[in-house]
Amino acid sequence: MTESILTPLRVRQARPRVGHISYLNCAPLLWGLARTGKLIDIDLVKGTPDVLGKEILEGRLDIGPVSLADFLQHQELLVPLSEIAIGSDGPVMSCVIVSQVPLEELGGARVALGSESRTSIRLAQLVLGEMVGVHAEYFSCKPDLESMLDAASAAVLIGDAALRVATLGSTRSSLTVHDLGQMWREWTGHPFVFAVIAARREFAARAPELVSEVHAALVEARDLALTEIDEVSQRIARWEDFDAELLRRYYTHALNYDLGDRQYAGIAEFARRAGLPRTLDARVPRDLSWSI
Amino acid sequence: MTESILTPLRVRQARPRVGHISYLNCAPLLWGLARTGKLIDIDLVKGTPDVLGKEILEGRLDIGPVSLADFLQHQELLVPLSEIAIGSDGPVMSCVIVSQVPLEELGGARVALGSESRTSIRLAQLVLGEMVGVHAEYFSCKPDLESMLDAASAAVLIGDAALRVATLGSTRSSLTVHDLGQMWREWTGHPFVFAVIAARREFAARAPELVSEVHAALVEARDLALTEIDEVSQRIARWEDFDAELLRRYYTHALNYDLGDRQYAGIAEFARRAGLPRTLDARVPRDLSWSI
Repeated sequence: MTESILTPLRVRQARPRVGHISYLNCAPLLWGLARTGKLIDIDLVKGTPDVLGKEILEGRLDIGPVSLADFLQHQELLVPLSEIAIGSDGPVMSCVIVSQVPLEELGGARVALGSESRTSIRLAQLVLGEMVGVHAEYFSCKPDLESMLDAASAAVLIGDAALRVATLGSTRSSLTVHDLGQMWREWTGHPFVFAVIAARREFAARAPELVSEVHAALVEARDLALTEIDEVSQRIARWEDFDAELLRRYYTHALNYDLGDRQYAGIAEFARRAGLPRTLDARVPRDLSWSI
Repeated sequence: MTESILTPLRVRQARPRVGHISYLNCAPLLWGLARTGKLIDIDLVKGTPDVLGKEILEGRLDIGPVSLADFLQHQELLVPLSEIAIGSDGPVMSCVIVSQVPLEELGGARVALGSESRTSIRLAQLVLGEMVGVHAEYFSCKPDLESMLDAASAAVLIGDAALRVATLGSTRSSLTVHDLGQMWREWTGHPFVFAVIAARREFAARAPELVSEVHAALVEARDLALTEIDEVSQRIARWEDFDAELLRRYYTHALNYDLGDRQYAGIAEFARRAGLPRTLDARVPRDLSWSI
C-alpha cells in the first residue's frame, strides 16, 4: 500500500475547557449536557469548587463556575454569563450553621469553618456578625461534624456534607441547623448567589462564538434537567445518601439556577456588606450581540 | 429552625469507576453513554490506554479498556466482557508502520516505536519479523514522525497520531504507510483486537449486577453511536484534523467494536504467536447468568 501523505493539516480549534462541580448541586447540569449530546463538544473537567476556581483563574479552564467572592475580586479576568448561576431564593439546604447553643449565645465562642469557600465563610460571618449580632472566634478545619463540634460551639458546612447533616443527622442530639440561604433571604430580602458561571475575558474576546455556544448549552442543559427532574432525582438518588424526593426538593425548591436582575441585586448587596468590589460588569447575553 | 437530625444514614453503593480512552477510536462510546443518559450512573475516568491500563490493574478503576497484551498477562485479575472490544477486521488506519524503504529492506535497520502499547509493538514486531521476515533494531521514542524518521528507517505509530500520518501527511515524500490491521488480516485471516473491555475480577465477584449494567450500557452506547454515526462524525470532525467522511469511514469500516468467536480466535492466534498466555477465560455475557 503506497499513498501520498502530503496533504496539509486543517487548522483546528480545540474544544472549550469547561469546569463541572462534582457536587450534587451541579449533577442536573451534567445530565442535561449528556442528554443533549453537547458533552461531545466540551472538554469537561470535574472538580471541587476550590480547584475549579483556581483552574479558571490560572487559565487552565476557559469557562466554569466561580465562587461569588472569587468572581467579585477577579472581574478583570472573568465575565459572568447571564441567565444561569448556582444560588437560592430561600432555604438552600446545603449551606448551614450547625450549633450546640442558640446563635445569640455564640458571642466569643468558637465556630468551626468546614469549608474553604470564601463565599460561604463570608456569608456565615456576615449573618452571625451583622444579622444575629455576635462576634465569634472562627477557625478552619475539615468538614467532619463530630470533630468540629468537639472543638467548637458551632460549625459551618457546605455542599454535600451540609446536605447530609441538614437532612440525615448526627449522633448528637440538641443541635440546631440554621440554613444560611434562608437567613440571608430573611435578612436582606434578596436571593443569594453562591457561584456564577464565568468565562475568561481573554477567551471570550478570542472565541465569543464558543462562549455563546457553551452558554446556550448550559442553559439548555439546566432547562432539560429541570423538565426531567423526577427521573434525574431518581437516577442520582441510587448513588447518594439521599432519597429521590429529597433530591427533587433540593433541585426545585432549595437551589435556584437563575441569574437575572433579582440575583444581581443580591450579588451587589453581598459585595457591599462583605466589602468586596461592588462595580459589576454587565452579564454576557446568550448570543453574539456583545463584545468584551 | 430546629429539627431532629438523628436519622440513620442509608447504605450507599458508589458508582462504578469506568475508564474511557481519550482517543478518537472511543469517542462514539462517549457519545452513546451521554445520549442514553447512562453517563450519570458511571464515574467516568478519561485517559490514555497506558494510564487506564495501569489504573485498572492497580484497582483504581473497576471496568475499562485493557490493551490485549496486558489483558493476556493479567487474566488472574481481569475478566473480559463479551460482545464489545476495540479492534479491526482489515485496515485499521490507526496502527501503522511508516517506512522510508520497502519493508523487506528493514533487516538490521532501525525502527522507531512511537507507542508505549505493548500490543501494537508486539504486532509490529510479529508482522515485520515473521510475515515480512526481517529482523530490525527497535527503539522507543516520542510519537513525532519527523524526528522518528531522522533517527530510523521506519516508524510505528498508533492512535490519533497514526491516523494523522496515514491520512494527512508529512513534509517528506517517498514514504509508504503500511496498515498493521490489514497486514495481520492478510497474514493470519483473523480480525485483530487491540483492546478488550475488562472488569476487575474482585469487582465482578462483589458487584456482578453493576458489571452487567455497565456492560449493557457500553453495548447500547456503541449501537446507538453506530446508528447515529453520521451525526457523531460531523460533531467530532469539528474539533479534529479529520473531516466527517474520513471519521465515518474510520468508525464504520476500519474499526470494529465486536467481540465474538472470530475475534476470540484472533486473540488466541496473537497470544500463540507472541508467546503470551493462550488459555482464555470465557467472555462474560451481558446478563446475570454467570459467576466468577
